[in-house]
Amino acid sequence: MTFIRPLGRAADSLRPVTITRHYTKHAEGSVLIAFGDTKVLCTASVEEKVPGHKKGSGEGWVTAEYGMLPRATHTRSDREAARGKQSGRTQEIQRLIGRSLRAVFDLKALGERTIHLDCDVLQADGGTRTAAITGAYVAAVDAVRSIQKAGKISASPILQAVAAISVGIVEGTPVLDLEYVEDSACDTDMNVVMTADGGFVEVQGTAEGKPFSSAEMATMLGLADKGIRELIVAQAAALAQD
Amino acid sequence: MTFIRPLGRAADSLRPVTITRHYTKHAEGSVLIAFGDTKVLCTASVEEKVPGHKKGSGEGWVTAEYGMLPRATHTRSDREAARGKQSGRTQEIQRLIGRSLRAVFDLKALGERTIHLDCDVLQADGGTRTAAITGAYVAAVDAVRSIQKAGKISASPILQAVAAISVGIVEGTPVLDLEYVEDSACDTDMNVVMTADGGFVEVQGTAEGKPFSSAEMATMLGLADKGIRELIVAQAAALAQD
Amino acid sequence: MTFIRPLGRAADSLRPVTITRHYTKHAEGSVLIAFGDTKVLCTASVEEKVPGHKKGSGEGWVTAEYGMLPRATHTRSDREAARGKQSGRTQEIQRLIGRSLRAVFDLKALGERTIHLDCDVLQADGGTRTAAITGAYVAAVDAVRSIQKAGKISASPILQAVAAISVGIVEGTPVLDLEYVEDSACDTDMNVVMTADGGFVEVQGTAEGKPFSSAEMATMLGLADKGIRELIVAQAAALAQD
Amino acid sequence: MTFIRPLGRAADSLRPVTITRHYTKHAEGSVLIAFGDTKVLCTASVEEKVPGHKKGSGEGWVTAEYGMLPRATHTRSDREAARGKQSGRTQEIQRLIGRSLRAVFDLKALGERTIHLDCDVLQADGGTRTAAITGAYVAAVDAVRSIQKAGKISASPILQAVAAISVGIVEGTPVLDLEYVEDSACDTDMNVVMTADGGFVEVQGTAEGKPFSSAEMATMLGLADKGIRELIVAQAAALAQD
Amino acid sequence: MTFIRPLGRAADSLRPVTITRHYTKHAEGSVLIAFGDTKVLCTASVEEKVPGHKKGSGEGWVTAEYGMLPRATHTRSDREAARGKQSGRTQEIQRLIGRSLRAVFDLKALGERTIHLDCDVLQADGGTRTAAITGAYVAAVDAVRSIQKAGKISASPILQAVAAISVGIVEGTPVLDLEYVEDSACDTDMNVVMTADGGFVEVQGTAEGKPFSSAEMATMLGLADKGIRELIVAQAAALAQD
Amino acid sequence: MTFIRPLGRAADSLRPVTITRHYTKHAEGSVLIAFGDTKVLCTASVEEKVPGHKKGSGEGWVTAEYGMLPRATHTRSDREAARGKQSGRTQEIQRLIGRSLRAVFDLKALGERTIHLDCDVLQADGGTRTAAITGAYVAAVDAVRSIQKAGKISASPILQAVAAISVGIVEGTPVLDLEYVEDSACDTDMNVVMTADGGFVEVQGTAEGKPFSSAEMATMLGLADKGIRELIVAQAAALAQD
Repeated sequence: MTFIRPLGRAADSLRPVTITRHYTKHAEGSVLIAFGDTKVLCTASVEEKVPGHKKGSGEGWVTAEYGMLPRATHTRSDREAARGKQSGRTQEIQRLIGRSLRAVFDLKALGERTIHLDCDVLQADGGTRTAAITGAYVAAVDAVRSIQKAGKISASPILQAVAAISVGIVEGTPVLDLEYVEDSACDTDMNVVMTADGGFVEVQGTAEGKPFSSAEMATMLGLADKGIRELIVAQAAALAQD
Repeated sequence: MTFIRPLGRAADSLRPVTITRHYTKHAEGSVLIAFGDTKVLCTASVEEKVPGHKKGSGEGWVTAEYGMLPRATHTRSDREAARGKQSGRTQEIQRLIGRSLRAVFDLKALGERTIHLDCDVLQADGGTRTAAITGAYVAAVDAVRSIQKAGKISASPILQAVAAISVGIVEGTPVLDLEYVEDSACDTDMNVVMTADGGFVEVQGTAEGKPFSSAEMATMLGLADKGIRELIVAQAAALAQD
Repeated sequence: MTFIRPLGRAADSLRPVTITRHYTKHAEGSVLIAFGDTKVLCTASVEEKVPGHKKGSGEGWVTAEYGMLPRATHTRSDREAARGKQSGRTQEIQRLIGRSLRAVFDLKALGERTIHLDCDVLQADGGTRTAAITGAYVAAVDAVRSIQKAGKISASPILQAVAAISVGIVEGTPVLDLEYVEDSACDTDMNVVMTADGGFVEVQGTAEGKPFSSAEMATMLGLADKGIRELIVAQAAALAQD
Repeated sequence: MTFIRPLGRAADSLRPVTITRHYTKHAEGSVLIAFGDTKVLCTASVEEKVPGHKKGSGEGWVTAEYGMLPRATHTRSDREAARGKQSGRTQEIQRLIGRSLRAVFDLKALGERTIHLDCDVLQADGGTRTAAITGAYVAAVDAVRSIQKAGKISASPILQAVAAISVGIVEGTPVLDLEYVEDSACDTDMNVVMTADGGFVEVQGTAEGKPFSSAEMATMLGLADKGIRELIVAQAAALAQD
Repeated sequence: MTFIRPLGRAADSLRPVTITRHYTKHAEGSVLIAFGDTKVLCTASVEEKVPGHKKGSGEGWVTAEYGMLPRATHTRSDREAARGKQSGRTQEIQRLIGRSLRAVFDLKALGERTIHLDCDVLQADGGTRTAAITGAYVAAVDAVRSIQKAGKISASPILQAVAAISVGIVEGTPVLDLEYVEDSACDTDMNVVMTADGGFVEVQGTAEGKPFSSAEMATMLGLADKGIRELIVAQAAALAQD
Repeated sequence: MTFIRPLGRAADSLRPVTITRHYTKHAEGSVLIAFGDTKVLCTASVEEKVPGHKKGSGEGWVTAEYGMLPRATHTRSDREAARGKQSGRTQEIQRLIGRSLRAVFDLKALGERTIHLDCDVLQADGGTRTAAITGAYVAAVDAVRSIQKAGKISASPILQAVAAISVGIVEGTPVLDLEYVEDSACDTDMNVVMTADGGFVEVQGTAEGKPFSSAEMATMLGLADKGIRELIVAQAAALAQD
């Protein structure tokens, strides 16, 4: 027996993806990305200096921070700034976003400057971290273009596109791009980050209920591969407009 | 000689105001308010309990929190959650929003429940706290309607509308609704919170440069009165749609 | 019907004001100021460097911190150092004191040095922030004199005197300089900071109960003006002794 | 060309594993586990209450904390208690350990009590998180035995064994159980948590340098499977002694 | 050769001691104590409940907090509330004050209530912790009297008086009650807390320079004994007035 | 009547002392010291720079940090890193260890470098701070030897050995080296730090129950002297091996 997804979505279908560039006006890159009802504002800010561990290295740095507005979720969660610290979950996600984006950057070619990626969830419905990575890539491209336009670098230090998607097993059925009701019911949840050339940057699979098998893993990775190819097309389409 | 405002705006004109209700889907009230390029997302969340100092009082509570996305501003500012504390400015503003909204609530009639107002600045161009108060009022009305719809209270505990606007003196000219370039150049900056019946809830005037006179104060209060009347009309218009 | 004040004080009378200079021995300026039973120790400390945002500017800085001893109040309040953070109220007050004093300083003439104003409430009975500003001015003058005596500057960088007082409406009656029992019962509470030449530096009015009208505001500002003139005379008298 | 491992270790060999039970005397379970020069002290403490989100649920809880002594590493790192917060890395690891152990617990059968797993690294040489999970399992079994011995539960709530190992690709060669010099040079680092019946609990793979392919992933998972089988034998051997 | 003390004070002389009761009006006990230029405000506050570890025990609790105003010292020190934490020195001192006072309390006879002792240094010139203990005792007696006056207990739970003094060796000379210039130059610094019947509550001796001998220790303890007898007379004299 | 110690230990006997050098491999000095069941890992790390207050002084610095693994004790205590701050007790102990070790260092001869002493309690049974000081001395010697071996200094900057022991009065009987059950029952607890030549570095005596007399103090100091002589022999024996 197979699990029926909300709105009859096929097991291997993404939710509708929209990518809106120049969403806010101050940031060098500013992208609102939606995976269905999940909406994340990704900004990329360029700073003409690097953190201590990169000073004098001739290399740049790419770093990310992640946040969730208190009422992005079904019930209001505490504001992290008011509580005085970021949760373990928040830190884990922002470290993942940072690593994923650095994987496609030639930090030497970036030069001694930092790109700060801020991913703030305006509305959450599952998959906020994968939407964040996918949107942050587009924002990063816009930020790099602004550095190029300013004549500070000529070639782009970005090696290729990167995107992310979740896959999972819900009631025995492997599905792509879990929304919230699926995510909270799933047996296994896996986030996959891949590059345009099909390489893996990150694979993070967690058995929420019973452990998963090698065969299930292979199926999930296949779904992820399909989803990420579609996301990379969507990123390219958004970046082609101007 | 008189100061010429950006885009030739008249000294006593508001920037274009837009109020978008139901901007996000989870919150009982969710309003995106724009004063020109200043954009604040105001959500109102209903919680069926009250903080310690109200327990057993038969009264409800209305409270506010304020935040600014790191790249809402011209140059990126540190994320307060990452720094581990809210700035004095943030706390001052969220205390102001909370007091302003409580001023139009009959807390007895609200019953033992809390309305949390979260005002998050997506894009800043001056006047974020006044936009926040004006938008939070609309979100609060929607939240109250949801409580009424759930049959928990019949009459609204909101006594009347409340809105806020900034006024100031820039190069000797009193102006209404300062945008960022005016704010950073002004001699005096005043935030005024008023109710629909014309009463003052808060008046906070600060001489940034030289002290201001009684006459200047009277002029500024007159401008504020005009602006707030217009904002209250805009709030009513937004709330009339459904 | 009119509100009768404690001890039969007239509506437009200040409480007895005493200003004791050289209250402690280490600080360049050290003033114990009393507004009736409210007693605040204001010290001014000179530091021969400036914070980061002023480095190399040729300008000095004036900043303030505010604290309340745990048992300055009717019931003991938590020690902020033990709790690990300053309350929003504390931060709001110390920002107000800092702005008020900077308003009468020519920071260029001060030179690249900082004056730290520490206002610590030994005993509270309403009006601690206004007493703090009024006392901090006297401490600042003594600190400036010490810099002059050391031959580091010749002319004083202080442009004129500044003082502060609260006004409010208690049971319908506008009154000057609220003490604690009045403050906790008032409909409107307004703190006014003015200079010797009658200009406003700060006006912060808050409707605690029902909103206040323009007419009430005018009456309150008139009372404040009278009170501040008297405080400025008291400051001058204290500074004339040596 | 193939990468030669330190001490000529084969690509698919674990470092010597030792598991010492009853290492300290107060904890219900206390295990010193060594993967070569990596030494982690894992204690399991039983507390007869559960955290808030489990109260009244009839279920127990299993949670973990992770720490590293300041000089467990080549150069001394700051003490987290002195800095006043745990790093993102620490939080990520302790969340992983907690999830991994909960995956083999029947929380209902545990009853309303908590098992706290404390994993403190005395000496680090790569693979501290996998050693921690592997050792924490043994400590958890001892803690469960103590609850059984006290007559509070009869059957063990532990469903099966769980262990963890790292795999990676170093200079093109897939290797098992990376030590520090390998870890800091590797292209891909993957931590795998598996149960005795061969199911995956967690798979976390990260491309440090260039992205990895599906084929490389399959090879790494095969190595992990071999290593974990050996670890589960070692756990059983240690638990058989008494 | 012998060390000559400031102002020709004899090696075995205390500085002038003054004890002013009822220094502030809200606290149940409020004492300003001066040891020469060291001035500490000690308040005792009665709270009709006990901390968690004493709940239901039938016993009361006595606890202390210590603070130093930022400009109590020669050069301004950071405000602990602003820095967000108390220094190790502050915590060490407040723990010492708390233990010293508890040593003379029959907590059973106090009943389930807490006495909070707040010792805030207004001006520092050496010996602030010993002045704090000596003054806190007087404040505690006043607080106990207020509990008795309220008819909540009849007999005093205070067993006997307690006081504290510093002794040290400066340039080879053992001296009593070190002031700041002596303290910063001494080889050995010892704080002694004793009861009226001559028993030791605390002895804390530290060699700042070279270690001290048994003979030096005996001499220092003799000096301390003399000083404490005099302080206990001064406490009694202050408490005899009313 | 006399108190009978656990295991029939004589009142003036130490518990078995073992000192294991080179316990972990990365630190310049690494010592596991056991006083009976109390086990403390003391590492000494050399850093080729000094803290701010020593920069340019030509002097080095010696500093200590102390920690307790959560389950070193009978019942698990909170992890300080997770709580976000070190307790007052922890700070007091680490300040004591630092002062004690600095007392035997010629900081000038050390040169501008820092020795960090980390004392982490693996298992606690009373006397952790005295074991820490005694073990830290041995680790410090090994660290100094490594600096000498590297040719950076020739003569050792350590002037003589230092060790520490606790003494106390349990049920009227003065005893040496209190273990946990004695410590929690004692009337007086005293920690004594002495050098090889018999000088006192620190004496910290606290009356837990009733105050102690001069005669009791003399007896306790005699016991301490005996114990410390034995510890210094044990340190020397451990350091003689290589």
